[in-house]
Amino acid sequence: MTVAHAPGRPRDPGVDRRVAHAALELFGEVGWAGFSMEAVARRAGVGKASLYLRWSGKEALLSEALTVGLARVSDVDTGTLRGDLIQLAQQTLESYAGDTGRAALRLMLEGGAIPGVAEHYERVRQSQVLAARGIVRRGIDRGELPGTTSVTLLLDTLVGGAMTHALTTPADRRAQLATHPERYALRLVDFVLRAVVAPDAGGTEA
Amino acid sequence: MTVAHAPGRPRDPGVDRRVAHAALELFGEVGWAGFSMEAVARRAGVGKASLYLRWSGKEALLSEALTVGLARVSDVDTGTLRGDLIQLAQQTLESYAGDTGRAALRLMLEGGAIPGVAEHYERVRQSQVLAARGIVRRGIDRGELPGTTSVTLLLDTLVGGAMTHALTTPADRRAQLATHPERYALRLVDFVLRAVVAPDAGGTEA
Repeated sequence: MTVAHAPGRPRDPGVDRRVAHAALELFGEVGWAGFSMEAVARRAGVGKASLYLRWSGKEALLSEALTVGLARVSDVDTGTLRGDLIQLAQQTLESYAGDTGRAALRLMLEGGAIPGVAEHYERVRQSQVLAARGIVRRGIDRGELPGTTSVTLLLDTLVGGAMTHALTTPADRRAQLATHPERYALRLVDFVLRAVVAPDAGGTEA
Repeated sequence: MTVAHAPGRPRDPGVDRRVAHAALELFGEVGWAGFSMEAVARRAGVGKASLYLRWSGKEALLSEALTVGLARVSDVDTGTLRGDLIQLAQQTLESYAGDTGRAALRLMLEGGAIPGVAEHYERVRQSQVLAARGIVRRGIDRGELPGTTSVTLLLDTLVGGAMTHALTTPADRRAQLATHPERYALRLVDFVLRAVVAPDAGGTEA
């Protein structure tokens, strides 16, 4: 899907981010069945007409919100494996503990079945998986990890651990985790890396 | 919430399981908004009247289905830490890769907001967390793990790793994973245990 922009109209990144955030929050709460341009406009505090100047419809709006709000793994490249994994863990904690956590869960549930959004969601998901695998491959290439490392086990436990931690953190401490994910991210990365680099590691491909 | 049973009426465990399964599948697909006794009866191939003989309403029905279909962690006690963790990993893989995976996700999203079900869901969730922590505590008591082991990191990576693996396995291989979770469960458990028992493990409480 391509996102329709009114030609020649300069865009305000602040407004775009606010709209994307409102769209993800709304989608998380009510799902596709309750998702409308009008409700997004109201929540973002912008006119419905101005939304239609920027996006052709709610499919395009939610598709772009996914890209802006959820897909940042591909930007991660700190130069070291540990640095990249810490960023990946922090992003996952922020995603699932923050305001967009419900949207991320709901996408897993409904994303593949929304006409006009499913294909875009699948592309975003695939590019996130590829980017995460790229982080580990670069670590192997730089000699930071054994060549026999199981990329799957490393990423399942790292991303899954961050996701589970965010989802099981009590509601009254979740916002704090979303704004300060550093401490848990660091402990999680060092825990998982220990499993990979330990002698006779079980974390190698069979 | 207590589940209402018609007094003196013998229950057929096969029918109960079929109804619980149908209830979870339906809830996973349509959520609470589309959940009805009639739709469960149709899907399970039983009369609506006979559902009302067993359950007072859809709240009681879904609450009991949660207990029957999702909450089995508390039964795990093989005598060894590794044995218990393998069962926990297998149950998690089965839950999220199998027919009830969507229900498990949707419960995280909606479970706390359904009148008459929220409290029961919270109790089931809490008892699962306590049972999982009990597995690790028993391992520490038996000397299988250092006393400084981080129960949180171990369970986040184990349960989260299994959940993420199930959710990211392509649809055409997910049913196979649900019926044969043993191989991945074994690799996952040995990976996570390596992080915990490695010398100078990062998996200890700070």
